[in-house]
Amino acid sequence: MIKMKRSPLAPGHLPNVHPVDGVTLHAGYAAMKYPPGRDDVLLVLLEPQTQMAAVYTRSQTASPAIQWCRQAQSQTHGGARALVVMAGNSIAGTGSAGGDACRNLANAVAEKYGLQPEEIQISATGVIGEPFPRDKVMAILPCLGDQPVKWAKAAQAICTTDTFPKLASRCTQIDGVPVTLTGIAKGSGMIAPNMATMLCYLFTDACLNADLLQILLTRAMDKSFHCITVDGDTSTSDTVQVFATHRSNHASVSDADDPRLDDFRSALETICLDLAQQIVRDGEGASKFITIQVRGALNDRDAHGLAMAVANSPLVKTALAGEDANWGRVVMALGKTDFPVNPDRLCISFGDYPVCLNGVQAKAYDEALVATYLKGQEIVIKIDVGMGQVGMDKSGCAEVYTCDLTHGYIDINASYRS
Amino acid sequence: MIKMKRSPLAPGHLPNVHPVDGVTLHAGYAAMKYPPGRDDVLLVLLEPQTQMAAVYTRSQTASPAIQWCRQAQSQTHGGARALVVMAGNSIAGTGSAGGDACRNLANAVAEKYGLQPEEIQISATGVIGEPFPRDKVMAILPCLGDQPVKWAKAAQAICTTDTFPKLASRCTQIDGVPVTLTGIAKGSGMIAPNMATMLCYLFTDACLNADLLQILLTRAMDKSFHCITVDGDTSTSDTVQVFATHRSNHASVSDADDPRLDDFRSALETICLDLAQQIVRDGEGASKFITIQVRGALNDRDAHGLAMAVANSPLVKTALAGEDANWGRVVMALGKTDFPVNPDRLCISFGDYPVCLNGVQAKAYDEALVATYLKGQEIVIKIDVGMGQVGMDKSGCAEVYTCDLTHGYIDINASYRS
Repeated sequence: MIKMKRSPLAPGHLPNVHPVDGVTLHAGYAAMKYPPGRDDVLLVLLEPQTQMAAVYTRSQTASPAIQWCRQAQSQTHGGARALVVMAGNSIAGTGSAGGDACRNLANAVAEKYGLQPEEIQISATGVIGEPFPRDKVMAILPCLGDQPVKWAKAAQAICTTDTFPKLASRCTQIDGVPVTLTGIAKGSGMIAPNMATMLCYLFTDACLNADLLQILLTRAMDKSFHCITVDGDTSTSDTVQVFATHRSNHASVSDADDPRLDDFRSALETICLDLAQQIVRDGEGASKFITIQVRGALNDRDAHGLAMAVANSPLVKTALAGEDANWGRVVMALGKTDFPVNPDRLCISFGDYPVCLNGVQAKAYDEALVATYLKGQEIVIKIDVGMGQVGMDKSGCAEVYTCDLTHGYIDINASYRS
Repeated sequence: MIKMKRSPLAPGHLPNVHPVDGVTLHAGYAAMKYPPGRDDVLLVLLEPQTQMAAVYTRSQTASPAIQWCRQAQSQTHGGARALVVMAGNSIAGTGSAGGDACRNLANAVAEKYGLQPEEIQISATGVIGEPFPRDKVMAILPCLGDQPVKWAKAAQAICTTDTFPKLASRCTQIDGVPVTLTGIAKGSGMIAPNMATMLCYLFTDACLNADLLQILLTRAMDKSFHCITVDGDTSTSDTVQVFATHRSNHASVSDADDPRLDDFRSALETICLDLAQQIVRDGEGASKFITIQVRGALNDRDAHGLAMAVANSPLVKTALAGEDANWGRVVMALGKTDFPVNPDRLCISFGDYPVCLNGVQAKAYDEALVATYLKGQEIVIKIDVGMGQVGMDKSGCAEVYTCDLTHGYIDINASYRS
């Protein structure tokens, strides 16, 4: 296994994290894959009344853990009392044995804490297709829960190829009553690779039911986790869950568009975007954080598709790794989608430097200036695809985030399991 | 620019090439991009009566050269008398100046040889978005045509990042009369990158009209050029053209399904597959030639989509570069498509070694044996996605070709223009 250095794009320090009333964190080491010195199992206990919502991978070969979560959530109508997350083996590709293991784990936790098995959510990330070390996890489950851990340690326990733990936290309010929202995540691909499954768990003391949470989470996803990519591969375990412990005593709110939810909605979107961007900043081998802005598309959906085509292009990503102002590759990537673009009105800037104006090299193009800009760690590519009506500043627009494609990605992924 | 070594997957020697009656090849050096020592412009002269057919990139931002070819072909109803291919600048991303340049070039060739401009086909491959060096090409056009060159030199003149020239040739027959079929191609991505546009030109002395050629070419594409990928990026210049000089005196054939065309059809398919596979063998940075075979899909189209998802997955390709038997990534790649698979009946073999049986690690799995197999240069991944009816050997099936993703790809593409 490659020893990985902390990403150069990592935040300078851990954020200030606000604890969430009704949430207790425990961690332990089951030796699932990693050498001693780090935890690899996280157990989160949640107070009664906790409601949850979730978005999972669209993979057809999803892990049995995902199947367990979906089914359990449906049986409890969105109720949840505990979450187990394991790092090192995804349980995917283990067939019915994997499904049995999920049930065993849920039974064990349920028994210890006097809960129902379907109140236990189970997540796993790691290699696909290797036998799941159920007995190792079962052996340490009873030892968990003796002493709570802090958020940073919890965030570390769910990491795999991540080079830094990912946390975000906000104090907000609903109808004037303080509400806390804290999340942890791990990458380090998009909705991505094998051992780089994307997992994210958000916790709040807000008093919101499962259906309402689902609407809010789904909306927040569209501007965050659905706007990132590292390599375009889709994990069998991708999971974003939000748990609301109902410990805040704000007035009841039942409509997702209720203006009393404005602050909370905004905090949820901010925290999702923050964690999503942290995942990109820890993309395997990443040396640059790249924002792709598209406008002038027929609609937002088209703009998103075009932006993702650029963000996923290996040729765009290798050019940026090489700090090469090869904007022709952006043209190529836009052209390969089915979303309409007008090649004769296409404009592209790298940062504030125009490189392409109305489909040809900009007159103001200065390779030296652009080359200097590309040496930076934060790159913005601005694209107008020319389908907007004249005078309309932004018809269809979108913003997505990715990283460059470097030797580091090959190093990590060519020898991942060894 | 990176100095590239000949691909380890290159054929041991150039194939035996049969000249095609009615085709004359000329090459010259216009200093479009490359240092002296190699030609970068190819001129092919074609006898009267020559008919052509073509398949072009689906890119929305296609090169003006592609637009010129489409329009010219339409004006002549499939007639063509010359082909100009330039290596070093794709003319894409040059706006109306690029279109004007194509017209200038066609006019110059037409004038010299007493032809109509629309009888001249024009192709270009190279950087996108840099001003096209029209004057350099115009200056050498009159000097071309003095002395014909051989096929190998012609194939070399259209290369860019290619590490070997690509040729294939067959003697076949139509209705008992000998017919020759010879082609050249350049890669070295799929329907791919920037400077690695895929171009292929096939020449035959057969007496077939444009409409019939189009049907035969389109069919041959489905089992060859549409089944290869290097990195999933789509070039703005991809071109496959076939020219028939009508110099053979076989009887007239007008139906694509006429049994008298069986041998020719088969030779065309063989030559297309040969050249397509040569392109993959010269994929940027390739160290392994990988065949993905899918069966047990609902239909051939689904099988093709599933096979391409595996062939395009950066995680599968890096694992193979690392000779890592990480079959879980194949499961992941299959899962990310919308083409139905049955995870519980999924079977995967690397070569003849089963690794996954009915969705879980095969009992016969022997990591050491598989690891030894993966050290080879030719890897076959066999997948049954489990949607076929029991007892049906092959419902939907497909075979596609790709290469691994190595440090070489990053080296080449991170500094391509420099």
